[in-house]
Formats: sequence, structure tokens, C-alpha cells
Amino acid sequence: MNLIVQKFGGTSVKDAQRIQNVAQIVTDTYQQGNNVVVVVSAQGDTTDDLIAKAKEINPKASKREMDVLLSTGEQISMSLLAMAIEKMGYPVVSLTGWQAGMLTDSTYGSARLRRLNKERVDVELDKRNIVVVAGFQGINRYDDITTLGRGGSDTSAVALAAALHADLCQIYTDVDGVYTADPRLVPNAHKLSEITYDEMLELASLGAGVLHNRSVEMAKKYHVNLEVLSSYTKNPGTKVKEVVKEVEKMLIRGVTRDNDVARISIMGVPDQPGIAFKIFSHLASKKVNVDLILQSIGRDNTKDISFTVSRSHKQISLEVMEELNEQLSGSGIVCDDNVSKVSIVGAGMQTNPGVASKMFEALAEAGINIQMISTSEIKISVLVALEDSDRAVKSIHEAFDL
Amino acid sequence: MNLIVQKFGGTSVKDAQRIQNVAQIVTDTYQQGNNVVVVVSAQGDTTDDLIAKAKEINPKASKREMDVLLSTGEQISMSLLAMAIEKMGYPVVSLTGWQAGMLTDSTYGSARLRRLNKERVDVELDKRNIVVVAGFQGINRYDDITTLGRGGSDTSAVALAAALHADLCQIYTDVDGVYTADPRLVPNAHKLSEITYDEMLELASLGAGVLHNRSVEMAKKYHVNLEVLSSYTKNPGTKVKEVVKEVEKMLIRGVTRDNDVARISIMGVPDQPGIAFKIFSHLASKKVNVDLILQSIGRDNTKDISFTVSRSHKQISLEVMEELNEQLSGSGIVCDDNVSKVSIVGAGMQTNPGVASKMFEALAEAGINIQMISTSEIKISVLVALEDSDRAVKSIHEAFDL
Repeated sequence: MNLIVQKFGGTSVKDAQRIQNVAQIVTDTYQQGNNVVVVVSAQGDTTDDLIAKAKEINPKASKREMDVLLSTGEQISMSLLAMAIEKMGYPVVSLTGWQAGMLTDSTYGSARLRRLNKERVDVELDKRNIVVVAGFQGINRYDDITTLGRGGSDTSAVALAAALHADLCQIYTDVDGVYTADPRLVPNAHKLSEITYDEMLELASLGAGVLHNRSVEMAKKYHVNLEVLSSYTKNPGTKVKEVVKEVEKMLIRGVTRDNDVARISIMGVPDQPGIAFKIFSHLASKKVNVDLILQSIGRDNTKDISFTVSRSHKQISLEVMEELNEQLSGSGIVCDDNVSKVSIVGAGMQTNPGVASKMFEALAEAGINIQMISTSEIKISVLVALEDSDRAVKSIHEAFDL
Repeated sequence: MNLIVQKFGGTSVKDAQRIQNVAQIVTDTYQQGNNVVVVVSAQGDTTDDLIAKAKEINPKASKREMDVLLSTGEQISMSLLAMAIEKMGYPVVSLTGWQAGMLTDSTYGSARLRRLNKERVDVELDKRNIVVVAGFQGINRYDDITTLGRGGSDTSAVALAAALHADLCQIYTDVDGVYTADPRLVPNAHKLSEITYDEMLELASLGAGVLHNRSVEMAKKYHVNLEVLSSYTKNPGTKVKEVVKEVEKMLIRGVTRDNDVARISIMGVPDQPGIAFKIFSHLASKKVNVDLILQSIGRDNTKDISFTVSRSHKQISLEVMEELNEQLSGSGIVCDDNVSKVSIVGAGMQTNPGVASKMFEALAEAGINIQMISTSEIKISVLVALEDSDRAVKSIHEAFDL
């Protein structure tokens, strides 16, 4: 008997009909002789509705109370799904985050899982119950409710799969797998049947929007076999695992773009040791995640430093930089959020020196200017103007013949 | 420093404006130097909306899952109220039933409180936090969520007041106290400033609709000082306590009526010992609560037995009685739910023999036929035709010059 963890997102449980569809998938899996743990997100617009309610009363509500409020969303969808499964005649029990032993730190709004106390879930599985667990939520050591922030339900699912030593963790979404590029952008993009954790990590962090990074990192760490698939079709999805077997080794795995980017530059700061440290430690102290970094070669004893952040961090970053510009007698701050980060990912490029030049060539031929470049072992990212973003993805996809 | 428990019902927190109004009442009380624990129900129609969602998916959902679903209603209103209090600049924390230590038995849907673990609430009060607690809900010994059923939030409030040895438990509703009769029915009914637990108990069980019996019983048992008052006005309410001081001892406290009544009679059963036991033990085994009972004087070795039940128990009662009618060779079942129970309540009547006759006189003068009569030490109830119900209340109110 296998143990399978299945996670369904908000659109997959948005109304009674979709919930019944999920109940069908779950009970089919159970019927085949598997133990099943199901993780659900809040229904479609529930979270937005709850946020609107809170905003009307107090736009600056504490994160603790927001978490109390928002965690009701998954509690509603998990009980409704359990009722749908009951109706089909299967034994089922729904559990909130605290009931399922999801123990987190105290960072309300974006808590991290610390430990999973799997006792209760084990008891229910021993009774051959289908176990429906609220995603996205847990409790801290004060017994206060916390939420896990973006991608939280994926993380809940992978954590449960890891703790329970599940044979497979299936992430059901509204796309049926991981593609070589966004199919809405590149019509001839095709679905990958397998991908490695590292490739998925790069794709997720680059805005592929299928799986959140935290969940992939956790899956890699605990060797959880992941599968991304659609709750709308019966098509096989994309498997995410340690090592991918394939007949023809593809050079690159996919092209992605991320528009949630702002570029900030501080100009004319002294070209001396410790400057970069000063800048990025200040940003880190404000919890700003910096992505690409580019430092100009020194000239006249000064240099320029540019970096990118997500748009939600733009304002705080600018405040930090204005302050530093004064302290360091820089010549000013430049900011641009009409930019997009376009990347290619693939374990194959490690051993193939021509990849970067092929990418740059494709962009040059399309007349697209590259503002910044960043490379890792299995990824190359470039920053381009927002208006060039779509064309960049298409021309690269074509150049690599994906 | 006094400790005051305040309970607000669904209409008192139905929207953002009403929640802000409640926050004002709560913080005013805190501002006066009191510790405050607030118990809230779900917002206005939330519970009905959740029930509709469940019905769409599974009209026969288990009570366990219904409780998981319904308990989100209070979790939403408690966090919103906490946010409103935060906005006014006061320290506050919201707690669900399990966080507040409300331990119940396992009767999902109508659980009874077994114990209150007040540790967490005490910790928060020591920090001088206003503590907002979800009414109506708790957990059983399996850590499963339960709800307390009708009047549950009142019971939560009284239980907290008892466990915390609160100086006062204020129940805020949409009426501003307990009246000598329903003011919509009897325009010159007046508000009572004080009433005893026993009188309140009789009134509550007779359909006065202000406080649920369970909460009054608990208040009496643990000597909790109750006050019923309105969240819409600043008028003083009605105090419910052990002994009422008053200048003029009123003979009766109020007139009430209850239309949720069905009368059932079994005719021509043998006039021999054990028949009544047989009938009412059968009904009890089906969890039917019988209210008034009337047994005719035997004639021709047979007798008739009549009793009243709430309308929701009519069907099951009829089934039980049809079966017994066959077993006992009775001559048939008669049922009438066009009836109403009209009652007068008052500790004063114990020592005053003329009360019953005065009531019957008033009804006779109004030409109203009495179908059944039941009396207790502080209450007299009569069953009349539904169409006579309003006139009965008015004529009795007038006769006693309330």
C-alpha cells in the first residue's frame, strides 16, 4: 500500500462542482489501494474577501490577527471537501493546521515550518481514513495560529509528504505540468515529463508560477517525489525528482520570465573595500531580498552598483539607498521598474560552453538590449526592458529549438 | 480592578460599523479600569451562508465536519473585532475556543462544556490585554472542534465568567433587557431592572428569546452576576441574580408565549399502571423532550393521554405514538400544531393563591378556551389555540396590571 499526498489549490476547490471533482480524484486514488492525505488551499476568492473585510475595519491590522482571520479560508474548504468525500461513501476526517501538528516559528504572515508532529495524521491513516489537511497554516509555540505566506499550501503538502515518508506528493494546479516556456506566450512550448529539483528551483524562482521555491527546496532536501499535474484533465503531469532519465539530453529545460522586478542603481560611490557589504547588509537588515547584482568597474575612484529587487521591496530599498547615498557621498539613485528578467534553465548547460552566447545572439538578432546579466551553473538570466520581454522569450525558445 | 465578561451576538457584529460600535463599548469598559473578556458570535448571516455551502455539497454531512465548518464563523468575527480594537490603540488578542481552553464532550453540534482550562486567558489578562474569545465552540478530548448548539455563545460567556470569577457577565443583544411581555405584542410592557435566576429560567424556557436556558442554569449554579442589555442603546439593562431587592414585590414577573408547540394525544389506551411510563420512556429513547402532559380521568377502563413537544419533534413523536397505539390497542392519535403556550412567571405567585384563578378569569373574559394547564412553583402555563395567542398575552398582561 502506497501513501500519496495530494495538494489542491484555490481554483481546484473554488465551488461545489470543483470540490466534487477533487473528491473524485481523491477517492479514485484511495480506491486503488493507496492511503491518501489531501492538502487544500482556501477556495478561489475567499482569501481576497477576508482581506477586504479586514481592510474595511483596520488597514493596519496586526499580522497575528490577519493570520487568525485568513486561516479560516482553508478550514472552510477542508471541511467542504471532507463532506463531498463523505457523500461518496468513503471514510474521511479533516484536520486544521494545528490538529495536523504543523508547528511553525512566530513570523506571522510568512511563518516557516519548524517541525511536524505527525501523530494525529498517523492515527487517522491507521484507521484507513482519507485525511484532509488545511494547507498554508500552522501554530507557533504559543499555540497561536500562523500562516506560511506565498506558496504555503505547497510547502504544507511537501512537509507532510516528507514527515510521513509518502511515496509521492502530487501538486494539482490549473496547468498540467511544467513547460519549456509559458504556453500563452510561446504556443509551441511543450510539456516536460521529468525535471530535476535544481532545474525546478531555478524555474520556480524565475517566475514559472507553478511551484513555489520553498516547497521544491524542501522536496529536494527530504527526497520527496513530486508531480505537478492538473485537476482539470487526466493527462500525466511533470515529475520532479533527483535524477532525470532521458534518451536525448536536452541542453536547456525552459525559458521563463519574471516581471516582478525593479532595478535600482547607486551611482558614483567610492571604489573601496566594504562598500558592497555596507549596501547589501543594510538591505538585508530591512528583509529585502536582492536578486541580480552588477558592479561597474571602478573609474575616477568611484563605481556604480546596480541590483534588482521584487517590486514590493522597491520603496523600502529606495529609502535605504537614499540614506546610503548621503553617507557615501554618492552621485545619486536611479530606479527603473519597467524591466523584466528573462532566463533559461537546464542542467545540460553546465557542460556546454555555447549556451550563453547562443542566448545573447538570439536577443541581439531580435534587437533587444541586455541591461544586466547573471549566471549560475544551470541558469542564465538577463534583464531587459519590459516591452521587450515577450519577444525575448519567443526568440530564445526558437533559437534553442525547444 | 474588576473583571467583566461581555458577550455580543450575531446582529451586534454583523458589519464593519457594528463591529466598530462593539469595539467602542469594549474599550470604554477597559478604559474605566476593568479587565475585559469579550465573547462573540458569528456575524449576522455567516452561519446560514456556511450551512448553505455545506448543503449544496452534502445535505447529510457529518456533524463533526459541520462543526469544523461552522466554527470558522466566530473565528472570523473575533479577529475582525480584535482588529477594530487594535485600531483604537488598545492591546488585544483573539482566541478560538480551543485556544481559550473550552473543553467539551463529543456531542458534535450540541456539545456540553466539561471543563475550562483558563490558563491562556489568565496569561493574556495579566498582560492587560483585552481578550476576545470565539463563542459557541470548543474542543473535545480528541482535539476535535465542537460547537455548543443553540445559545452556545451565551453559555461560553457565562462559563468564562464563572471560571475567571468575573464580577459581571454582560450579555449584549438587540433588545435592551427583559420585559414583562413581548413589547411588539403588548405595547405597554415594561422593562424589568432585576430578575432572579429562577424567574429568568422559566422565562427563557418559555420562549422569551433573550437568554438561553443553559446559560442561565450555569449562571445560577456558579453565582455569576448576569446583565442583559442592548448594544444599540446606552440604557441600563436587566440584572439577573440570586436575590432581587425591590420596594414593591411584584406578583408576577412577565407574560410569555411560545408558538413552537405541537399537541399530540393518544386516545382510549388501557387505564392501568405503567402506560404513561411506556409512552414517555419510548419518547425519551428517541430524544424527544416532552413539555406539558395531561392525562384524562379513566372511563370504561380506558384513558386519553395528551402532551406537547416542539414542532421539530412532532414527526418522530407521531411515529412513536402510532406504534404504541397498535401495541396498546388504543383508539387513535390526534395531533394539533395550531396551538400556542402562554405562561406567566414570577417568584411572587408561590405565596399568593389567587394568581392562577386571575389568569384563567382573564382568559375566560376574552373568550379564550384553555386546552391544557401546567403549573410549577413560579410559573403557570396554558395551551390555547394559535389564533388566540396574541389576545391571551394582552389580556393577561392587563389583568395583572404589569
